[in-house]
Amino acid sequence: MTVTSRKSVTSLMSAIAETGRDPARGGYSRPVYSTAELDLRSWFIAEASARGLDVETDRNGIIWAWWDAPSGDRTGAIVTGSHLDSVPGGGAFDGPLGVASALAAVDALRAQGRRPERAIAIAVFPEEEGSRFGIACLGSRILTGAMPVERALALKDDDGTTFAELSAKAGLDPAHMGADRERLGQLGAFIELHVEQGRGLIDLGQPVAIGSSILGHGRWRLSFTGQGNHAGTTLMRDRRDPLVAAGALIGQIPGIASRFDGARATVGRLQPVPGGTNVIASRVDVWLDVRHPDDDVTAQVVAEISTRAELLAFEQGCTVTVREESLSPTVSFDSDLRRRLEVALPDAPVLDTGAGHDAGILAAHIPTAMLFVRNPTGVSHAQEEHVEDADAEAGALVLADVLMSELGV
Amino acid sequence: MTVTSRKSVTSLMSAIAETGRDPARGGYSRPVYSTAELDLRSWFIAEASARGLDVETDRNGIIWAWWDAPSGDRTGAIVTGSHLDSVPGGGAFDGPLGVASALAAVDALRAQGRRPERAIAIAVFPEEEGSRFGIACLGSRILTGAMPVERALALKDDDGTTFAELSAKAGLDPAHMGADRERLGQLGAFIELHVEQGRGLIDLGQPVAIGSSILGHGRWRLSFTGQGNHAGTTLMRDRRDPLVAAGALIGQIPGIASRFDGARATVGRLQPVPGGTNVIASRVDVWLDVRHPDDDVTAQVVAEISTRAELLAFEQGCTVTVREESLSPTVSFDSDLRRRLEVALPDAPVLDTGAGHDAGILAAHIPTAMLFVRNPTGVSHAQEEHVEDADAEAGALVLADVLMSELGV
Repeated sequence: MTVTSRKSVTSLMSAIAETGRDPARGGYSRPVYSTAELDLRSWFIAEASARGLDVETDRNGIIWAWWDAPSGDRTGAIVTGSHLDSVPGGGAFDGPLGVASALAAVDALRAQGRRPERAIAIAVFPEEEGSRFGIACLGSRILTGAMPVERALALKDDDGTTFAELSAKAGLDPAHMGADRERLGQLGAFIELHVEQGRGLIDLGQPVAIGSSILGHGRWRLSFTGQGNHAGTTLMRDRRDPLVAAGALIGQIPGIASRFDGARATVGRLQPVPGGTNVIASRVDVWLDVRHPDDDVTAQVVAEISTRAELLAFEQGCTVTVREESLSPTVSFDSDLRRRLEVALPDAPVLDTGAGHDAGILAAHIPTAMLFVRNPTGVSHAQEEHVEDADAEAGALVLADVLMSELGV
Repeated sequence: MTVTSRKSVTSLMSAIAETGRDPARGGYSRPVYSTAELDLRSWFIAEASARGLDVETDRNGIIWAWWDAPSGDRTGAIVTGSHLDSVPGGGAFDGPLGVASALAAVDALRAQGRRPERAIAIAVFPEEEGSRFGIACLGSRILTGAMPVERALALKDDDGTTFAELSAKAGLDPAHMGADRERLGQLGAFIELHVEQGRGLIDLGQPVAIGSSILGHGRWRLSFTGQGNHAGTTLMRDRRDPLVAAGALIGQIPGIASRFDGARATVGRLQPVPGGTNVIASRVDVWLDVRHPDDDVTAQVVAEISTRAELLAFEQGCTVTVREESLSPTVSFDSDLRRRLEVALPDAPVLDTGAGHDAGILAAHIPTAMLFVRNPTGVSHAQEEHVEDADAEAGALVLADVLMSELGV
């Protein structure tokens, strides 16, 4: 095996700094299997190949780059990596930092002359954000069977393209997609490095944290239905305007969520139908995101918001339906693995996160852990997200230490 | 001149009943210069040509089909017609009924052996709804100079395509678009037949009304700006969420508008940026449509809504800007022309309308009038809009009578 490349995280990240920029929203828009995300996937495959890693894209579109053990046996592989897709107008680091840090960690281990006794793999998961098809961590959900593949393939993006159609266009065969027990059976552990998405490490003055858990979270679609009509000719008293009910609800959600300590409830996306300036909407779809460490509280928040939605819809002569689109209970990462990370990284604080990750989906099947790298703005899913170069390099070295401690390389 | 075709309004309308159907929203989506609207334009050109009318598309994309006077002089032409574009998910009749009725009226006059002493023209105006570029009656605004052509050409649709680019794609030369005094100088009067967009004729038990005035109306864009962030990691107390402020405002608009008798205020379109389910928006654009017979009251309603928007934005740590996108004062149609219509149609009631029309723009330059045909649902800009066959035929005959009385044919 030849080592043809050794790069810092900063130089790896700078190579993709122009890919998928969004001049309208600011930041980056890299939807799964868009030109931008496909370009990032090609970049990763080139970087991994340049390191002599054995790269394969599996039948679910997950890329795996293998640094094989001398035995060639991949059983019990230690996997790191993350994702390359972004939310619309997202930051540069959410996803790519974990991928670039994995490459840099491999470089660091090699520079130290280490050779793994067990296989290492770097994985890149598609549609982690769920920004295109509405379901976060779609790639790992399909891999693990957490989402039936038939349902995943039928999901549609805003243009009406199904996930099956888009996957086929990206070179996959939808007929062969689905849960992959053989693959899961190879994996010994998954350790995902990710930019922190809150202010925890700012307050603690540390560059890297160990993850403890992922808050339970879910997405619900509230569909308000009224009577579409002309904005100029329909008197106020004759209206059944679903956007009035939906708007009132959105205005009241912070008040409801704030009554539950630690709860977060958000509407960031809604779609009036037909959506014309001079048209009273006939329907409005509202997507609600709710998270809390206690899954019972999440359910209570959703129930309160649903009740309020029904009341507000009734007041406007409208109706509303509430449909759960996804729900993930709170995930605590593997306690043994976490304890070993705490030994390897005695200075690193332990933090939970309100953000979902593929590590949370994989945790139901294999030991998983996460590392968070400081974000000096505390802002996430927006262009203000940031990581200082020094923290990025520190993160990659910590990841290398962790892989080493797990592998005994 | 050969008459090769005589068709009822119903049969003309049935020929375009499948064009531009919108299976997602219901009804029809026929944005200006879309495949659907271009198909309708081709249909009209074919129908007009089959009648031996002299068809031309002018440099602003307005189609004119001329039934020339024996002298060949087009000065003082009596123009009828309407538009073929629709709002998203609109009804079948809004626009096309006026075009089909014009063709049927020509047929009826010819069947009676009439020959006009002055030219008749049927006009089809582009982007009457303003659904694609945000400005209603864009074609007639450019023709009359009510909107500077430079501003019109720079308008962008939701895909970022400018009106100049789209016009060029439709075969026009943007460099030659603009106010057309020569054309306006040819026109003696404009009489637009249109489906009624309210319940006036239902209550009066009549098939056709004469228009008296168009309510003043305008569009304003309210842009709320806050801090984009992650929906899972940002505590409720740390948020500056512009969609919470915008939603609250939308919920309160009916209460504000209802305090002004006869006022209509509507939000049917809004756009959170970036618009992801798991992202707190950084900005929200909200389009507000306000109408009232008294232009001072329209201004008061907008001022009250703007003040409320500022308060609600402030409460969320956000800011808001309000920008007027278009404003049309109340238009009373030409009193002489209307009086002649009342003589020709003694049974027809006289109604005003809250909807904007090209006739309202042209009224600043030439005598204009409108005829409204009963809509048994009273619903407009939605698939429920309807016209009974018998009322459609009655409308075309009334239009023929009116053209005859104006032309002395």
